[in-house]
Amino acid sequence: MKTPFSTLNRARERGSHAREDLYQILDATPICHVGHNVDGRPVVTPTCHWRDGNALYWHGSRISRAMTHARDHEVCITVTLLDGLVLARSAFHHSANFRSAMVFGKARIVGEEEKQHSLEVFIEKLFPGRWESLRPVTKKEVDATTVLRLPIDEGSAKVRQGPPADQAEDLSHPVWAGVIPLSTVAGEPISAPDMQTDLPIPGHVKQYLGEEI
Amino acid sequence: MKTPFSTLNRARERGSHAREDLYQILDATPICHVGHNVDGRPVVTPTCHWRDGNALYWHGSRISRAMTHARDHEVCITVTLLDGLVLARSAFHHSANFRSAMVFGKARIVGEEEKQHSLEVFIEKLFPGRWESLRPVTKKEVDATTVLRLPIDEGSAKVRQGPPADQAEDLSHPVWAGVIPLSTVAGEPISAPDMQTDLPIPGHVKQYLGEEI
Repeated sequence: MKTPFSTLNRARERGSHAREDLYQILDATPICHVGHNVDGRPVVTPTCHWRDGNALYWHGSRISRAMTHARDHEVCITVTLLDGLVLARSAFHHSANFRSAMVFGKARIVGEEEKQHSLEVFIEKLFPGRWESLRPVTKKEVDATTVLRLPIDEGSAKVRQGPPADQAEDLSHPVWAGVIPLSTVAGEPISAPDMQTDLPIPGHVKQYLGEEI
Repeated sequence: MKTPFSTLNRARERGSHAREDLYQILDATPICHVGHNVDGRPVVTPTCHWRDGNALYWHGSRISRAMTHARDHEVCITVTLLDGLVLARSAFHHSANFRSAMVFGKARIVGEEEKQHSLEVFIEKLFPGRWESLRPVTKKEVDATTVLRLPIDEGSAKVRQGPPADQAEDLSHPVWAGVIPLSTVAGEPISAPDMQTDLPIPGHVKQYLGEEI
């Protein structure tokens, strides 16, 4: 599949142009970093994102500066998973194993008629089946929320995996070399202390236990 | 301690002004996101950072666009740790537990005389005692590397921890509520397949095993 992705600002040898690679990274964690400008100065805000088809979405308070400054402006959304620390024989070849995706473009506000649906998609992507079990959203809550949408038309993925890549002449240097693998995993769910009835932990919560996220 | 930190772009109730809080977050993970502008467009690049005293440092290839565009320009460095997914009774009160730090300012290049020392600090912060055991750095390697420095003079920390914060009238709604805790942990070190001697795994690697990072 041909894609219009550019590899702006990424080392060529680690760049990947495939849309599916990008989607996999974007879907692998709920957290991203949104870069936008505030009076010409770069600001990087962490937030939760979700992908629906060929667009990224995120939300925030209607009155938040991060949402106001991103709306109708150029943004860069970067999603990164740190997979390991790479220890080589030379300081120079120390590295990190990671998967990273960048998406560029103009963020547009999601209209009133689509907004509630997009919030439902967010909840359902993380916790399938949960939306229906929740206290229904109110108009006031939806009104207080801004959802932004960024089409995935310009971006790139960058991945480094595997052992250190030392120079041949360094291989005999007597120091341990290798990888410390890192993963983000979910622990035992903690029920809210103000639960008023003894409800079982639902499947959409249990699915995470011990899983990488 | 009075600090000149602003809370630009962060919700007030979650903002923290203390320098020590900021340091703790910056030191809790080696990965950060650097926001800078390229021809007026925001770009967010993941990289490894280290803190030495009251400054953040990161490095890259001397010829990389990310380093060239950050040098002598305004940047925003954001470090985020995702600590949990927070499930409330209403969609609106779903949240994430996290620790996040932002630092703003102009990135300056580290001079030739300090550069090698700062790279040593980087390795030693992650792997105490490793620098001396490595194949010594060459002038060519140091020359090919740019190190940037950002003083920690303007920034903020933002933290959300704990259970969901539902509205009182929603507490009896019959849905499980609580937190799915997340942590990034180190697994068993993987020795490089091209190790030529059977060296023991050093303490600066073993220290990570099973630890949160």
